[in-house]
Amino acid sequence: MKRKKPVPTVKRLLMYLHALENFVEEGKEYISSREIAQILEITDTQVRKDLAFFGNIGKRGKGYSVNAMIKKIKKDFGLTKGVNVIIVGIGNLGTALLASDLLRKRKFKIVAGFDSDMRKVCKDCCGIGIHPDSEITTIVKDTGVKIAILTTPGEVAQEVSEKLYNAGIKGILNFTPVKLNLPSDCVIHNVDFTVELEFLKYFIE
Amino acid sequence: MKRKKPVPTVKRLLMYLHALENFVEEGKEYISSREIAQILEITDTQVRKDLAFFGNIGKRGKGYSVNAMIKKIKKDFGLTKGVNVIIVGIGNLGTALLASDLLRKRKFKIVAGFDSDMRKVCKDCCGIGIHPDSEITTIVKDTGVKIAILTTPGEVAQEVSEKLYNAGIKGILNFTPVKLNLPSDCVIHNVDFTVELEFLKYFIE
Repeated sequence: MKRKKPVPTVKRLLMYLHALENFVEEGKEYISSREIAQILEITDTQVRKDLAFFGNIGKRGKGYSVNAMIKKIKKDFGLTKGVNVIIVGIGNLGTALLASDLLRKRKFKIVAGFDSDMRKVCKDCCGIGIHPDSEITTIVKDTGVKIAILTTPGEVAQEVSEKLYNAGIKGILNFTPVKLNLPSDCVIHNVDFTVELEFLKYFIE
Repeated sequence: MKRKKPVPTVKRLLMYLHALENFVEEGKEYISSREIAQILEITDTQVRKDLAFFGNIGKRGKGYSVNAMIKKIKKDFGLTKGVNVIIVGIGNLGTALLASDLLRKRKFKIVAGFDSDMRKVCKDCCGIGIHPDSEITTIVKDTGVKIAILTTPGEVAQEVSEKLYNAGIKGILNFTPVKLNLPSDCVIHNVDFTVELEFLKYFIE
């Protein structure tokens, strides 16, 4: 296993990646650390320090090549190939994620959906098969998928996450409000909308 | 208007707030900068620097009072009272947000939902009235609500956001993939699930 960068650095690099992708859409070929810094409201020293990790890819007076930088970050993050994921819990949120264009655009492929409600099972939702929870183990093993998006009700979140872990899932994007308790070789990342609202609230006043 | 702290500081302070709230649930009264730093994977120097802003509230050898710190951050962020919000676009994602316990727990009160689909209108969803888009202006003005959560399809996002702005909305939490173009006195914060997945992907390998 390669040594991982610290969490805040990883978050900044992903912010750079998406800012750079916006620049591509605007037709820009080169970008300065200052321009990146301004958009993300951080210092240009920080940007230069982070990007120095990828070697000497900036050109004096011209800045960084947008495409070269995107390629380097994507390669480092293993985002050049598609990434398989499953969604567990096909309620409103799960259904919204199944329909997400953005997931496809960013090369996340939903290989299966799961639900305990038999009425949702076996239906095709946006071209993705929905299976009963009892098939989690088989399908995770067969497809070798490592990432699960958890959108079940909170009450069953811990139980379902244990099933996912035992089947071979190594990372869970947890949309439930429950703090999952799993062995440390499973990475859990909690998503909390309310933080984004609190953030917004602060800046409108 | 008071001078705003920089974006990364605000994000860290909100992370501290939620970490502190978890400590309360665990029954902890005092916490060291090192404990906060470890959980959030940042340096304790950074934590001490950020918290110094709130004055000398740490006790030598004991650490920070968890409750005092929560109170100070909440006060500074205007989060002691409830905050009114509206949700525009009652599809799957909008419905999931209407049902969210977390919003209520963090004192965000959804005062109304809006949709252009007349079949969704006037129904009560989780006790919240759903109105036609044509009533946005009146209801925003009458309630004085300043924050909107935008969960419409991308195709109408710009048009709807202009209506929200003209009605008096000052901040939009944008769940659509569209880059909204509004005057700079409206704060737009874009939510992108895929960043969280990319983050997770990096750490599971």
